[in-house]
Formats: sequence, C-alpha cells, structure tokens
Amino acid sequence: MKKIMITGFSGFVSRHFVEYLYDNELSYELLGVDIKEPELDPQQFQPILKMQFQKLDLLDTAALQNVIRTFQPDYILHLAAFSSVAYSWKYPSACFENNAKIFLNLTDALRAQGLDCRLLSVGSSEEYGNVSVDSLPLVEGQPLNPVSPYAVARVAQEMMSKVLVDGFGMKIMLTRSFNHIGPYQDERFVVPGFIRRILNLSQSGAVCGEIETGDTSIVRDFLDVRDVVRAYYLLLTRGTPGEVYNICSGKGVVLSEVIEEIADIVGIQVTGKVNPKFIRPSDNRMIIGSAAKIEEELGWKAEIPLRKTLEDMIYTIQQERL
Amino acid sequence: MKKIMITGFSGFVSRHFVEYLYDNELSYELLGVDIKEPELDPQQFQPILKMQFQKLDLLDTAALQNVIRTFQPDYILHLAAFSSVAYSWKYPSACFENNAKIFLNLTDALRAQGLDCRLLSVGSSEEYGNVSVDSLPLVEGQPLNPVSPYAVARVAQEMMSKVLVDGFGMKIMLTRSFNHIGPYQDERFVVPGFIRRILNLSQSGAVCGEIETGDTSIVRDFLDVRDVVRAYYLLLTRGTPGEVYNICSGKGVVLSEVIEEIADIVGIQVTGKVNPKFIRPSDNRMIIGSAAKIEEELGWKAEIPLRKTLEDMIYTIQQERL
Repeated sequence: MKKIMITGFSGFVSRHFVEYLYDNELSYELLGVDIKEPELDPQQFQPILKMQFQKLDLLDTAALQNVIRTFQPDYILHLAAFSSVAYSWKYPSACFENNAKIFLNLTDALRAQGLDCRLLSVGSSEEYGNVSVDSLPLVEGQPLNPVSPYAVARVAQEMMSKVLVDGFGMKIMLTRSFNHIGPYQDERFVVPGFIRRILNLSQSGAVCGEIETGDTSIVRDFLDVRDVVRAYYLLLTRGTPGEVYNICSGKGVVLSEVIEEIADIVGIQVTGKVNPKFIRPSDNRMIIGSAAKIEEELGWKAEIPLRKTLEDMIYTIQQERL
Repeated sequence: MKKIMITGFSGFVSRHFVEYLYDNELSYELLGVDIKEPELDPQQFQPILKMQFQKLDLLDTAALQNVIRTFQPDYILHLAAFSSVAYSWKYPSACFENNAKIFLNLTDALRAQGLDCRLLSVGSSEEYGNVSVDSLPLVEGQPLNPVSPYAVARVAQEMMSKVLVDGFGMKIMLTRSFNHIGPYQDERFVVPGFIRRILNLSQSGAVCGEIETGDTSIVRDFLDVRDVVRAYYLLLTRGTPGEVYNICSGKGVVLSEVIEEIADIVGIQVTGKVNPKFIRPSDNRMIIGSAAKIEEELGWKAEIPLRKTLEDMIYTIQQERL
C-alpha cells in the first residue's frame, strides 16, 4: 500500500482530500501531521484508508526528520501554511517562516533520507500580483509580481522548488491555486466570513440588513475545494516535477456578486458596508486564471458551480449551529 | 551625530565600510552587530567614529528588538548573510533562514519601533541566474531566474523589500552586488582561495605547479570591495527607496585569467586542475553587469583595476603570514 503524508492535516483542504480518496476508493496508508489536532477521526475511513495522525511542528527539524524517516512516504501533500494575506501584512517574518521555511525543512528532510518521494508544493494566485486586464486569464508564463508578504513567500517557495528539481532531481510538482472555498473553511477567509455574517442577520429575524466588508469590487476566480483536491491528487500522482499548474475555474466573480448569491440562497436582502480596516495595502484588483495547462496535460477541469458550493457551505454552517 | 547600525559587522565588507567612513572623515555613531567578535578594534577609529560592538544573533528576535529600541539607528547597513552558493546547496533551509529570515526580523523590528530608518538590503548578481549572452551586460530590468538556493533567498529578500516599501513606506534601498573581492576576504571564496593556494605553491619553493579549481571557464564581473562600500554609503544616504541598483564593474573576466594574473604577480607559473567536487550544480556561465543606473543617479563608478585589487589581496595575505 503506497503511503501519503499530509501536512496541514487539520485544515479544511486536507479534510476534503481524505474524503476524495475515500469516496473514490483510492486505498493508501496516510500519515497526517499538524500542530493542532484534526476534527475528523482517522479511524472512520477504514478499511480504504489506513490513517494515523501525529502532532508535529514543521519548524522542529529534528522531529520532522524523525517522522519522515519512520513513515517513509511515497507522496507528500504539503498543505501546511499560514495562508492569510492580512496576517502576512502584520507579521511578514512569521509568514515567511511558516511558508517558505517549513517547506525547506521538509525538502531538507527528504534529501537527508534520500527518499524518492513525490511532493506537491501548493502556491497561490496571489503570486501574480497586480496584473493588467490584458493579461487575463492568467497563464503560468505570466511574470510574477507579488504585492504582499504572503505572495512573496509563495513565490520564494516556488522558485526554491524549481532549484531543487533542477539541482537534485527532486520530484516536486507546483500549483498556483486560486481562491478555493467550500464546507469547513475557517471564517477568517472572505466567503465563509460573509456567510456567517449573513446567517447571523437572518437568524436575528431580519429580512434585510447590512454586513461589514472589505473592498467588494475586487474580482476573484473562485473554485470549489472538492475540485481542488481532485487536481492535487492528479498532480501528486501524475504531474510533471518542476512544472507549475494553475488550479482555477477560469471565471471571474465580483465579491459583491458572491454576497448577493449568498443572500439569495439564505433568502434575505443584504448590502455591504465597507469597513476600512478590512482593506489591505496593495490588494490585487482582478484575478482570473487559465486552467488550460492542467486541462491539456491531465484532463482536469473545475466542475462544481459557485451556487452549489455556496449552498453546501451554508448548509454545513447551519448544521454546525443546530 | 547620525547613527549607523551595521549587521555582519565582523565580515570583510563591514571592515572596508568602516575604513571608508574613517578615511573620508565621515563622522557617525556606529553600532556593529554580529554573531562573532570583530577583528578590528572599535576604539581605533576615534574621534571620527564613535563605535561600539554588540554580539547579536539576528534570529533572536527579542534581542534584536531590544538593540534597535536602544540604539535607534538612522541607517542600517545590513551585511549579515550566509553568502556562499556552495553552502546553500548543502543547506537550503539554513541558507534561507540566514538570509531572507534575518532580513525580515530586522524589518519587523524597525516597524515595531516605528523608526524612520534607511536600510540597505544587499542582493547579489546571482539573482539573475543563467542568462543568454544577448542580455549582457545585465540591467536591473532583466527578468530574474535564480538557479541556486542562495540566489532564491536573495530574490525573496528583494521582493519582500519592495512589498514593504510599497505597503508601509519603508525606506529600503536594494543592491544586486556582483562578485566583490579584496583584502581580508574569507578564503572560502574563490579568489582568495586561489591566492592562498598559489602562495602556498610559491612558498614551497616551486617555480611552476598546479592548483585545484572548479570550472575556470566561467566569466564573472569582479570589483574591488572598496568600490563597493563607496556605493553602499551613497545608496544608504542618497539612494531611492524601493529601487534596485547593480553594483558592478561592467567588465567580465574569465576565472582562468584571474589565476594567471595572481600567478604573474606572485612570479610563478600555475595551471589549474579541475576537481569535480568544486563544480556546483546549475552554475551560471557568464555574468557581466551594467552599472549605468547607479552611475546616472548617483555618479558612482567602479574605479580600482583588478590588478591593483589582486596585488593588495596578495600583500595582505603575505603580511598575515609573516
């Protein structure tokens, strides 16, 4: 049975990845690591997945080396990251440490063990930075122009991956993942944050109301996390080392439209009120990606429509509140 | 009296920077920090320079914050770095930590104190990576294509600086410094390494002989460290924040020519013998820079010819051996 190690195991992307394997009867031995305990029970996916969890801080290089040596992974899905742009503006150094540095600790450990392991490095559409409308949809060859500490950390990780692939023949596949949303996502992120505020309004009995937002005129390429994890599995098992792949829907949506859609599903009228504290320095105006490369190479395409994603997110949050 | 803090104070560039200030009677209060003690005596530059040294690990963020708070620098010359490409291939993660991370610890500390401090971030010609002959001499607008972990760390630092300048109005000036050489340089570096090996041959009484080398067909743009520190002073005091400046001679020299020149000064015939362990993965073939930007903006130009630099380096090493 092949072995997959997942970092950032307690996050929402990992949870969907595990469910993807289980639902598709893809049988693996899994080791999940994270600094915090996962919400899911590793035993519930028996017998398809033989899964265990281990608490691990990826900044603890000795402990990490030990885990890699013991588990001997064939694949690593590296999801651990501090992925908040807002946080990165507050703590640029910590952001760097918890993105680029933990990634390098991982690759150092793999090289130290001489493991022939395939590793997926998750990057972000934020790496493109501010782009002109002419260059949309963004293809992977677009020059990178990161405009936040988080984006720089991601670009650094990507550049470092390429150097490790070229210099040592490591098998690292790379993504630039666009905004993915879905059930169980932390409400620090923009869309679950909207949903919670709109549900709060609705549960207070209001039929119309106001929620605080950042700049809702920005355009993002949203896709469902369940489409994302399907892409991650394909890349992990069949992607080309050293290559970068956009993971995106190919469609741009204005944030204000997302708010309207949520309000429509919930059955309430909502207007957004801009709170300047949610406005971020140097934010990107418009991001839309092209998924042509991964579609051509691996036949992957985003399939779940935004409406369905939002419905599932709303349903999940409502269930949690019962 | 304005205050300059110098990181990497015990290194050879810092030593030349201090001598530059002293020789030109540029009076400052200086605080040097480093993880190891300096060879020079801080008191010897009185009364022009009021100088002190403090042992400091820039990875110790609390200690760093404390130093910044106490000293309140007007300028920081940030020289501390692990600047060996060879080392970076062995320890990519440590290289990253001791380049990009310590830089961010420094900028975090400046922001925490709200200091209006000008900071010089030293980058490297390695950031350009493998370039075609058509793109020589390299100008600052050339797309960066780093091919070693060290180069990636430098690019990351540069990108992060731009983000901090744009996002917070920090006053960070940036260099891409080409290979600088000069007296007191550590013999881990290529040219002092050649000199030591050739002097060893000569002192053994030989009139001809062989030294071990890496690939001596590569071309580099060498300049004297005393020209470099003059540029650093100009940039620190008058450079434009957020701007990157090549610091280079504008001339390319084949490594084998450097060996011949040294041998000629020493008065011995030397042939190089390639030792594969000195060959580095993905090494750049040819690097020559254009210094047009800093020349136009600040009137700086490399002045010391290679022969003079090599003579001074040889003389210094001979003196140390007496």
